[in-house]
Amino acid sequence: MTTPFTTLAEFRAVLADAPGPDTAARAGAEERNGQLTKPPGALGRLEDLAIWYAGWRGDARPEIRAPQVLVFAGNHGVTARGVSAFPAEVTVQMVANFEAGGAAINQLSKAAGAAMQVHALDLDTPTADFSTGPAMSEAEVVTALATGWTAVDPTADLLVTGEMGIGNTTSAAAIALALFGGEAGDWAGRGTGVDDAGLALKAQVVAEGLAANPGAGADALEALRCLGGRELAAMAGAIARARVLRIPVILDGFICTAAAATLDRAVPGALDHAVAGHVSAEAAHAKVLKALNKEPLLALNMRLGEGSGAALAINVLKGAIACHSGMASFAEAGVSDG
Amino acid sequence: MTTPFTTLAEFRAVLADAPGPDTAARAGAEERNGQLTKPPGALGRLEDLAIWYAGWRGDARPEIRAPQVLVFAGNHGVTARGVSAFPAEVTVQMVANFEAGGAAINQLSKAAGAAMQVHALDLDTPTADFSTGPAMSEAEVVTALATGWTAVDPTADLLVTGEMGIGNTTSAAAIALALFGGEAGDWAGRGTGVDDAGLALKAQVVAEGLAANPGAGADALEALRCLGGRELAAMAGAIARARVLRIPVILDGFICTAAAATLDRAVPGALDHAVAGHVSAEAAHAKVLKALNKEPLLALNMRLGEGSGAALAINVLKGAIACHSGMASFAEAGVSDG
Repeated sequence: MTTPFTTLAEFRAVLADAPGPDTAARAGAEERNGQLTKPPGALGRLEDLAIWYAGWRGDARPEIRAPQVLVFAGNHGVTARGVSAFPAEVTVQMVANFEAGGAAINQLSKAAGAAMQVHALDLDTPTADFSTGPAMSEAEVVTALATGWTAVDPTADLLVTGEMGIGNTTSAAAIALALFGGEAGDWAGRGTGVDDAGLALKAQVVAEGLAANPGAGADALEALRCLGGRELAAMAGAIARARVLRIPVILDGFICTAAAATLDRAVPGALDHAVAGHVSAEAAHAKVLKALNKEPLLALNMRLGEGSGAALAINVLKGAIACHSGMASFAEAGVSDG
Repeated sequence: MTTPFTTLAEFRAVLADAPGPDTAARAGAEERNGQLTKPPGALGRLEDLAIWYAGWRGDARPEIRAPQVLVFAGNHGVTARGVSAFPAEVTVQMVANFEAGGAAINQLSKAAGAAMQVHALDLDTPTADFSTGPAMSEAEVVTALATGWTAVDPTADLLVTGEMGIGNTTSAAAIALALFGGEAGDWAGRGTGVDDAGLALKAQVVAEGLAANPGAGADALEALRCLGGRELAAMAGAIARARVLRIPVILDGFICTAAAATLDRAVPGALDHAVAGHVSAEAAHAKVLKALNKEPLLALNMRLGEGSGAALAINVLKGAIACHSGMASFAEAGVSDG
């Protein structure tokens, strides 16, 4: 398919034109919620989730039948700086593992009844080392955004985006610094498991990345281009497409959320169709979620990426929708409503 | 079936004789966990859950095929004191709703692939008002324990117990006060939604209950008899049976956890086969979980009971087991392990 954008400016314009939720469906869902056989508010966040989902789907009594999990993989020139505990070859090895069904995200997608696809983005051509200049040209980042955009199944009713890319917590930390400020050390974490020296190096590389890309601090999509990786841009492209199609999204961990945050900072409200699936053990994730005003559904100390935390959270949303759309009303059940 | 107990003393003895987890299966699960294609610890609590479950099931690579959700309902004489926002008739009305498939727990059990049964315990004969003396005789509490005990399917591989009983947060608060001390106001909460005056009355009734039942503070099973309801005793009986059968349990909210706590205080280690499914919006629940050293899997501001929070958490445990038992090892997948 062709995408409705060939430049970052066009991408931003398409995102800015995306429709909001269906207010009538949302109001209908609120009314229904008040009639169900439970004390008011007793299902807590499940009630908010169901009403939010109903609005985006344009259906006051929706179902979740076709969740889609998209995993994007990319390689990062910045790994030459020694910022990861794992060698860069692991990216392509893990893609093979995704394709063979052996990774965590395969199991979690299956357990959630979700279709899962993996897209490897030019693994033989890592992005440039962002500590010395832009990671990608505009053509490269637009191609990656388009990969994500076209990967979304328009008939999906829920989207999770995940990633694999050795070195990509360093990229996510640099994006977070560009978007939210502070110090490099606020955003650099242990990723897959670097030691203290590795952590200090990561923070230094992140700081160098901001110095080498002065445009990144002023424009969120420039931050994605200069500091991101192809898999981050692909996640952003997929999440943007979901926004246009009114497909609700569950955000995964730090890298996914950093990529998504570029959309929110480029176009306010661009993540209104997204909830935070979990909060990762990578400490910077909680800070990004707070900056985005997103309360995570799960807090299980996960830090794997791949979309794993979000895929697990699909079941929470499914439970919310099952209650909302399946429960009897007080009148139907003949129960006194207090 | 006949139960191996006809008195509280015999019940305690049976529970004390229950076997522990299979240490070889647990060790095998730990070894397997270390070989899976993920950085060490990256699945966070899912890894701990899988190892815990494997030990109790005696299988280093287990599956969850047959979760069981048991909902017990009982009526409480203490409702005569006006401690609930809903009339006592709602208990029997909600039992009909459970049987017709219209309640939240029906939807959540189905979404989790769990078999669900409801057991109404002598709804026409409420327990005695515990604010003036024991809620149950020993014969009554043993009968309720036996109802729970026999309701457990020995072929189940996971158990959730839930409850319905207008007035039962007052009963749970009294049990918590008997077991853990403090003031009545520490444990009395808003339940299904009482106002400030109702809350003050609940605390007063709880305090009166302790004064009227001096044996409850000295013996946890006496606390269950004197302050509990039939549905609380049935949950305790089911959780005890699961302990004997090595069926892992997911605890639900405040009432379920208070009932379960009587087992832990009667026989240390009696809840080693149980995890906390969620932490309820009923503030006392977090305090009971802390006293039991149980970290909840979910925190979604739910306060419905019925087993709803625990049923939702079944999917978290299923996800953990799906990863543990379904993922490839580094060697199988040809992935470099750092």
